[in-house]
Amino acid sequence: MQQIEFFFEFASTYSYLSVMRIESLLRDSKIQILWKPFLLGPIFKKQGWNDSPFNLFPAKGKYMWKDLQRRAKKYGIPFSIPSQFPRNGLLASRITIANLEKSWISTFIRETFQANFAKDLDIANPEVLRSILIGIGLDADPILENSGKQEVKDLLRKQTEKAFELGIFGAPSFIIGNELFWGDDRLKDAILELKRNLQ
Amino acid sequence: MQQIEFFFEFASTYSYLSVMRIESLLRDSKIQILWKPFLLGPIFKKQGWNDSPFNLFPAKGKYMWKDLQRRAKKYGIPFSIPSQFPRNGLLASRITIANLEKSWISTFIRETFQANFAKDLDIANPEVLRSILIGIGLDADPILENSGKQEVKDLLRKQTEKAFELGIFGAPSFIIGNELFWGDDRLKDAILELKRNLQ
Repeated sequence: MQQIEFFFEFASTYSYLSVMRIESLLRDSKIQILWKPFLLGPIFKKQGWNDSPFNLFPAKGKYMWKDLQRRAKKYGIPFSIPSQFPRNGLLASRITIANLEKSWISTFIRETFQANFAKDLDIANPEVLRSILIGIGLDADPILENSGKQEVKDLLRKQTEKAFELGIFGAPSFIIGNELFWGDDRLKDAILELKRNLQ
Repeated sequence: MQQIEFFFEFASTYSYLSVMRIESLLRDSKIQILWKPFLLGPIFKKQGWNDSPFNLFPAKGKYMWKDLQRRAKKYGIPFSIPSQFPRNGLLASRITIANLEKSWISTFIRETFQANFAKDLDIANPEVLRSILIGIGLDADPILENSGKQEVKDLLRKQTEKAFELGIFGAPSFIIGNELFWGDDRLKDAILELKRNLQ
């Protein structure tokens, strides 16, 4: 079984595109997705940034929203510019990392990204995440409670440190063996690399 | 006649890829390339950067070289990591902007990028540019002399200011009508946009 390690951040606009595309791109393959939520905030801080570079560098930010609209349209992905950016993905990341083996995890990830980038809902608000969990048909309370445990917090902290050690500086990032691919633009290249390895 | 405005910087790695690709992508089309050399230095300075972001943010820089090697290989473009980065493209930009109407200008641009990114030659050195001009079969001295004129310096300064006003923050950048496309990754999208407008 070949695997693609998919490092993503719930606040990240281009992670949204990859989250919405990756499963259909891997359909009919034997490639397994290893979902790797992490936080960009601590990584940006090490670069001296206390906000998203899209906010710190306005021309780049203005372009990013335009580009994202064009890309979403091209891929047929629902998108509307959120009224708040970036939104804190800490709680959503903790829920994800505590439930990686659950059959519903990819649905939760997709729904949460869509809440942020298609429905303009604040994913930092536990009530928004509760609604998503309930919508999937889950018992939300124990999942939310569990996500606040120290061991879950530690898991996410370690994954963010691991991302930094791997040379990851933005999201989405894909790891194939020892090769890093950065950006939704490189998702197809990452998959091609994996398929080459399979031959 | 439809046109693509191609803003590039001689020091820019991803501009190299686009310079090497754009003419074959436009073959059999009626689209004309408007070559727009400009300087990223003054634009980076406005963002508080006194060097290339690939040097300021080492993880991003390390990844960029790896990514560039992969892309160049994919496209069949000769590439070797230059021993100095970024190299100053001021003189090459002035020669270009003073000779945009000449039939040899695209050859000069390609040869200069290849000197930097395939042959590891210092394009800031007038002798390197002189060799390129002579290699094309030109009388190099008057071209070099002309590039130092105040009116040529002013043209380049104005073009860099224009790039900034257009919202350009990196290179390569492509302008189709009022639409900005940034990065070698968006070159094909920019051309598609133009072809849509042609229909």
